[in-house]
Amino acid sequence: MELNLDLNRDIPILDWESYLAERTERMKSSAIRELLKLTQNPDIISFAGGLPAPEFFPMREVEEACCYVTEKAGKEALQYSATEGYGPLKEYLANAMHKYGVPAEPENVLLTNGSQQALDLLGKIFIDPDQFVLTGRPTYLGAIQAWKAYQARFHTVNLDEHGMIVDELKHAYDKVIEDSGRPPAFIYVLPNFHNPAGTTLPLERRKQLAELATELDLPVVEDDPYGELRYEGEDIPPICTMIPERTIYLGTFSKTLTPGLRLGWIVCPEKLMTRFVQAKQGCDLHTGTLVQYVANDICQRGFLKPHVKRLRKEYRERRDTMLDAMEEFWPDDCSWTRPLGGLFLWAQVPEGIDTQDFLKHRALKENVAYVPGIHFYPNQDGGNHAMRLNFSYSPPDTIVEGIRRLGVALKKGLQA
Amino acid sequence: MELNLDLNRDIPILDWESYLAERTERMKSSAIRELLKLTQNPDIISFAGGLPAPEFFPMREVEEACCYVTEKAGKEALQYSATEGYGPLKEYLANAMHKYGVPAEPENVLLTNGSQQALDLLGKIFIDPDQFVLTGRPTYLGAIQAWKAYQARFHTVNLDEHGMIVDELKHAYDKVIEDSGRPPAFIYVLPNFHNPAGTTLPLERRKQLAELATELDLPVVEDDPYGELRYEGEDIPPICTMIPERTIYLGTFSKTLTPGLRLGWIVCPEKLMTRFVQAKQGCDLHTGTLVQYVANDICQRGFLKPHVKRLRKEYRERRDTMLDAMEEFWPDDCSWTRPLGGLFLWAQVPEGIDTQDFLKHRALKENVAYVPGIHFYPNQDGGNHAMRLNFSYSPPDTIVEGIRRLGVALKKGLQA
Repeated sequence: MELNLDLNRDIPILDWESYLAERTERMKSSAIRELLKLTQNPDIISFAGGLPAPEFFPMREVEEACCYVTEKAGKEALQYSATEGYGPLKEYLANAMHKYGVPAEPENVLLTNGSQQALDLLGKIFIDPDQFVLTGRPTYLGAIQAWKAYQARFHTVNLDEHGMIVDELKHAYDKVIEDSGRPPAFIYVLPNFHNPAGTTLPLERRKQLAELATELDLPVVEDDPYGELRYEGEDIPPICTMIPERTIYLGTFSKTLTPGLRLGWIVCPEKLMTRFVQAKQGCDLHTGTLVQYVANDICQRGFLKPHVKRLRKEYRERRDTMLDAMEEFWPDDCSWTRPLGGLFLWAQVPEGIDTQDFLKHRALKENVAYVPGIHFYPNQDGGNHAMRLNFSYSPPDTIVEGIRRLGVALKKGLQA
Repeated sequence: MELNLDLNRDIPILDWESYLAERTERMKSSAIRELLKLTQNPDIISFAGGLPAPEFFPMREVEEACCYVTEKAGKEALQYSATEGYGPLKEYLANAMHKYGVPAEPENVLLTNGSQQALDLLGKIFIDPDQFVLTGRPTYLGAIQAWKAYQARFHTVNLDEHGMIVDELKHAYDKVIEDSGRPPAFIYVLPNFHNPAGTTLPLERRKQLAELATELDLPVVEDDPYGELRYEGEDIPPICTMIPERTIYLGTFSKTLTPGLRLGWIVCPEKLMTRFVQAKQGCDLHTGTLVQYVANDICQRGFLKPHVKRLRKEYRERRDTMLDAMEEFWPDDCSWTRPLGGLFLWAQVPEGIDTQDFLKHRALKENVAYVPGIHFYPNQDGGNHAMRLNFSYSPPDTIVEGIRRLGVALKKGLQA
């Protein structure tokens, strides 16, 4: 047999672009992931990624759990398993949700490959081409990416220092009806320590949103990856506790345990669960069995609570360090959110500075990186003078140095 | 706050069905997964699942690898990682593919959550609503499920004892053009030890398929989960070696290592890789970091080759045991494939027996299960007198007993 062994050979060429589905045209690489590649230069201090601090990963606990589950239950832990997820872990999560007042039973829980898969499943199940999603502006980049792949459109409401301005939702809903003749797929909301804005939705607004969703008869997607990472103040009940019958709640182990396991979960009414299970079967049969057993073992031993307590302390210190450094090194006409938890804060710079240009031509030259605000606007209609800064990944002294460098770059930029 | 804490409460009810996307209507639960639930009764001998034998899982090697990677590289192995997959594992896989003549470089490899995710990504990237896919009849159930979620339609070509009758492909292609006015998304083919048919596509047919795909300018999806599990005869070059520039090749660790890691891979031309990466980012950011490190460690130590050798020996024995038992216990007017590898064989029973009814009313009463053939026909237009039998999961004596029970049931069924 004579073979032309070149996977990338051009003759005879297949014109792949002409074979792509219509939806594929709308897909884009995540700006953050592309940025992360740029910032792999070890000289660069990057506030761009949303990474937890690896020095706090529970390495020993993961190792011990791996040993325990392969020794005690290797045949099950390495085999195919149920699409819904591992029973004891679902039970643990249902119980853990009770702490927040969420009335979950194991039957209301589905394990996913990180929260991102939950976002993808939501797109698959709910979004028809050209249908609208109602969300805040800015909003989570990964959600925009997941739903644009299903040809979603977006109508948005502004955020202020308390998060989504719920008063604007009715108007946005009316625009959705006007532009598409049908209701939006759902309202997407990040009440706790918003990514990217760093805001926390007060109880009154949550109630107001719950009432409005009921009045408009809409599903609500409540994304809560950071809820456990509160650094001050009291927990506020999730929207899911107010309108459980119409809320799909998303949780994750990525920020509390480790992201490399890829473990998240959905909590939703049981009558909707069948649809999630069907969709997930087609996507990947089930979430990794071994990692579910490992996470379950770690959780059942009661490790998570003290670990999260430690993370709160460490991340609070990093947040405070970043806020103090901004106060010290940044020009006067900048402003930023003061997040009560989570991993991010959102900074506004003077209008003379476009944060996309500024990243490329000034910040990276000073060896410091962030994510330009525009990437968090699904319709690219804002964020030109904003940036998202992550404070969880870098140790405090690195944070000070990175914020100093950004301050230098900002001052140069304003003088130019 | 007074809350009505019931996730499943009905008042005020949201009519979820009215909120589902059009594509969601076409989703069905996998018949096999629903069946597996039925067959969890320990008295039932199940040939229904596609499970590898858990007694051969490399428990100790997985445990050692977990310890090694968490100790040596815990910070990386538990962190977020590249969508494309873990570099050293991609390199290992590219090299391993060379053995089969597939000219893969690491840049041609994408790690997926099992092969099922590769099927989902193919649907997402290539299939427009109502577009056709060309496939054999019967064909892999998981592919049907994945693509129906993207509203695919199917035109099919028959299989004989050598697999897909490639001579029929041109006619099926013409029907696709006639029915939809556009080419199919791709040709889907399982050349090695077909699931469910147990057939192996001879070299001549592979060449013929490669030529036809080139003539019709179509992409080919070559699904090869069982290629390593050959029990007799010589390896036949994958179609990917003949038309690498238009083939998307799917591999998996599920059958050689363990399924519970959820690790598969795609090999495709680099110019198409960007699209897979974009689609996968939206789906789940990346495949689990820890499980990739673990698989890589096991592979780099050279464990896989002797392990697969052992699996070949054990599974060959089980295949032979099943074939001998069918010869001994089954009625004369049944026939079946004699697979050269893989996990499945395909049996035809007399026309008086409908294998769906027979499962429910006779086989399960004799405490034995299989998958009725109709589930492998995307248009439900065949397989009524066929069944898929798995021979990898049950130990030899259980296989003999299960086949005996099926023989008893068949004889009763034929007398009725």
